Amino acid sequence: MSRSPGRKQENHKISRELFVLTYGALVAQLCKDYEKDEDVNACLDRMGYSIGIRLIDDFLARSAVKRCRSYSETADMIAQVAFKMYLGVTPSVSCSSATGNEFSLILDKNPLVDFVEELPAERASLCYCNLLCGVIRGALEMVHLAAEVTFLQDRLKGDAVTEIGITFLRKPEDRKHRR
Amino acid sequence: MSRSPGRKQENHKISRELFVLTYGALVAQLCKDYEKDEDVNACLDRMGYSIGIRLIDDFLARSAVKRCRSYSETADMIAQVAFKMYLGVTPSVSCSSATGNEFSLILDKNPLVDFVEELPAERASLCYCNLLCGVIRGALEMVHLAAEVTFLQDRLKGDAVTEIGITFLRKPEDRKHRR
Repeated sequence: MSRSPGRKQENHKISRELFVLTYGALVAQLCKDYEKDEDVNACLDRMGYSIGIRLIDDFLARSAVKRCRSYSETADMIAQVAFKMYLGVTPSVSCSSATGNEFSLILDKNPLVDFVEELPAERASLCYCNLLCGVIRGALEMVHLAAEVTFLQDRLKGDAVTEIGITFLRKPEDRKHRR
Repeated sequence: MSRSPGRKQENHKISRELFVLTYGALVAQLCKDYEKDEDVNACLDRMGYSIGIRLIDDFLARSAVKRCRSYSETADMIAQVAFKMYLGVTPSVSCSSATGNEFSLILDKNPLVDFVEELPAERASLCYCNLLCGVIRGALEMVHLAAEVTFLQDRLKGDAVTEIGITFLRKPEDRKHRR
């Protein structure tokens, strides 16, 4: 960790508008670079992953949170602490599987799309905010939690809410025991 | 303007770290796309310009500032209100010409380069933060002020401070009168 929790923190906030517009420029550039939406989505996910594996140190230092004891606690931590800290919003969390390893983060309002009206018709498969999935996946991996993170619903695509699905993957030792 | 100054404002702040890392991903992508630093710089400036012409409405609505009566007042406004609002820092301002149309914004600390150690040797001409110049240029243009905005010094390149130069260009009617 590069920062100790006790250190006096500087002003860590910036304007959301500047971020949202800069993120829009990034997505627009990738849409120029890649013809297929799937390639843009994959690139955003990779970029997010690289951000997540760096952001986790900052998160652990600034939040000073304790280790989570369950997937459920981890999902709550992402929604209530991480989203609040980094994006200023708090998604609601629901557990969507009997096995207890699938969760949904539900955003009534997605701060990243403030200036986006709707996706162009030729970009119907674009996951505009896919960077977020990569960030969550990367950050989780750094605390030894493998997960699949994808958009399940997206208001930009006409859904009623924006929903990010997190599926925690079984740990290698779990698999070993099952063999 | 899309927002009236009196409207109750939502939480407009997000974490600087997420912005800084996302901006880094944007610059890295452009470095993949363009071989020449000059092309990356020009692209960042263009992107910033597009952001600036949209951000100005937000700025005018949220700051509720009055019309500036001089270049000097405008430069102070950019440093003390706009930079503070969008990046959480306040550069110092100096007037660098006898004609009163050239100003420098001097940043002891540049929040955009928090995670950047130094530029790679093969990217020695990269103006890493050139987006900012474009943003300022675009925003000024929307209030009918033509300006050239460039980095004059950059701590990433070993300079003691980061310095953004703003040269307000004579208005067309000024030129006309001189003919």
